[in-house]
Amino acid sequence: MADTLDDLGKRLERFASEREWQRFHSPKNLASALIVEAGELLEHFQWMTEEQSRALAPERLEAVRSEVADVLLYLMQLCNVLGIDPVKAAQDKLAANAARYPVEKARGNSRKHDEL
Amino acid sequence: MADTLDDLGKRLERFASEREWQRFHSPKNLASALIVEAGELLEHFQWMTEEQSRALAPERLEAVRSEVADVLLYLMQLCNVLGIDPVKAAQDKLAANAARYPVEKARGNSRKHDEL
Amino acid sequence: MADTLDDLGKRLERFASEREWQRFHSPKNLASALIVEAGELLEHFQWMTEEQSRALAPERLEAVRSEVADVLLYLMQLCNVLGIDPVKAAQDKLAANAARYPVEKARGNSRKHDEL
Amino acid sequence: MADTLDDLGKRLERFASEREWQRFHSPKNLASALIVEAGELLEHFQWMTEEQSRALAPERLEAVRSEVADVLLYLMQLCNVLGIDPVKAAQDKLAANAARYPVEKARGNSRKHDEL
Repeated sequence: MADTLDDLGKRLERFASEREWQRFHSPKNLASALIVEAGELLEHFQWMTEEQSRALAPERLEAVRSEVADVLLYLMQLCNVLGIDPVKAAQDKLAANAARYPVEKARGNSRKHDEL
Repeated sequence: MADTLDDLGKRLERFASEREWQRFHSPKNLASALIVEAGELLEHFQWMTEEQSRALAPERLEAVRSEVADVLLYLMQLCNVLGIDPVKAAQDKLAANAARYPVEKARGNSRKHDEL
Repeated sequence: MADTLDDLGKRLERFASEREWQRFHSPKNLASALIVEAGELLEHFQWMTEEQSRALAPERLEAVRSEVADVLLYLMQLCNVLGIDPVKAAQDKLAANAARYPVEKARGNSRKHDEL
Repeated sequence: MADTLDDLGKRLERFASEREWQRFHSPKNLASALIVEAGELLEHFQWMTEEQSRALAPERLEAVRSEVADVLLYLMQLCNVLGIDPVKAAQDKLAANAARYPVEKARGNSRKHDEL
């Protein structure tokens, strides 16, 4: 990965600030915008089989990449306004999930697997 | 931010691989899981005013942080299986948005502001 | 309301059947399509204040109406394939909610109010 | 189907009014609540294959039915506050879709099939 998220977060703050968009960027609104983008991401896959979703045509992959970017940009902005470090939060969650789904019990079992 | 996403991505791959969960982790399924978590994130804010969402109680903030982590973990896993670099994708999108919403025109105007 | 949902459900079944779309219409796919449309619905409101969302311009209201229709059409199709009567399900849920949120306790209190 | 939606809509209005919940029920908030419920609905299917989603165990079907009810209840409340007749809106949309996806062209073709 070319960069840490740090720099991206700072650039996003400047981007919103220059445009005086901070007043629109309440956590409530950013969480809405995030799920709207997550819907645009899912839309690409909704009629595909799982196999088809694993073998995207190049133009489709590019479009998916653009939606991934939108989701990440809103997630970063939400973290900015709430003072959350998303990578630290994810690391903590991954550690908690490792304790919750021990390898021997979880292997190959989707039932245990509702939250990671 | 304590870390780049690189390391997190690698740990997630190992996590899924040890549990033999890769077969569940088609892009289609991961995009579904991502939006489900985005819904759990939004749920915290759905009855709040925007002002309330800017001033979360500590326990609420902690719960929100945990949902942010889930969203990021699924986004990273989706990027893993599709070979997308999310930070690079976000940087590209931010550059495109800067061209699309020039500062002078976009200032304070939410109408222009449907996609960032 | 001009009609019961019964007739609409039957017309939707014929619509999908004539186009040989039933094989795409697994419950999994229809639930995905439903949330994608719910995202398009929410998109209209994401940067509005609550007050603005209560006073939509006529063209906006028309666009919202079209998204409402999409959500209902997928909900009906999901009910068709799963054999669920949505109105009966909603009546049962409303009765359960009435027991869960008694008037005296719930009055004006959004905290109690996480699920209806 | 046991009933029209008319009566359900009226009962929902009374339900919210008795609890003084109308002030929480802006279109913006109801659209958020709707997508949150759509996420809880999708959660049941996220790790299933399409085939598994067509053959739900009875307890799972009951849980899905409960989420379907929640989606419909919020959709009805959104229609109430916006003055939308959802069945009429869906009928209009279905007619538009019939013109947009003629049987001969659409048959078996998921590509044409991004919006119904």
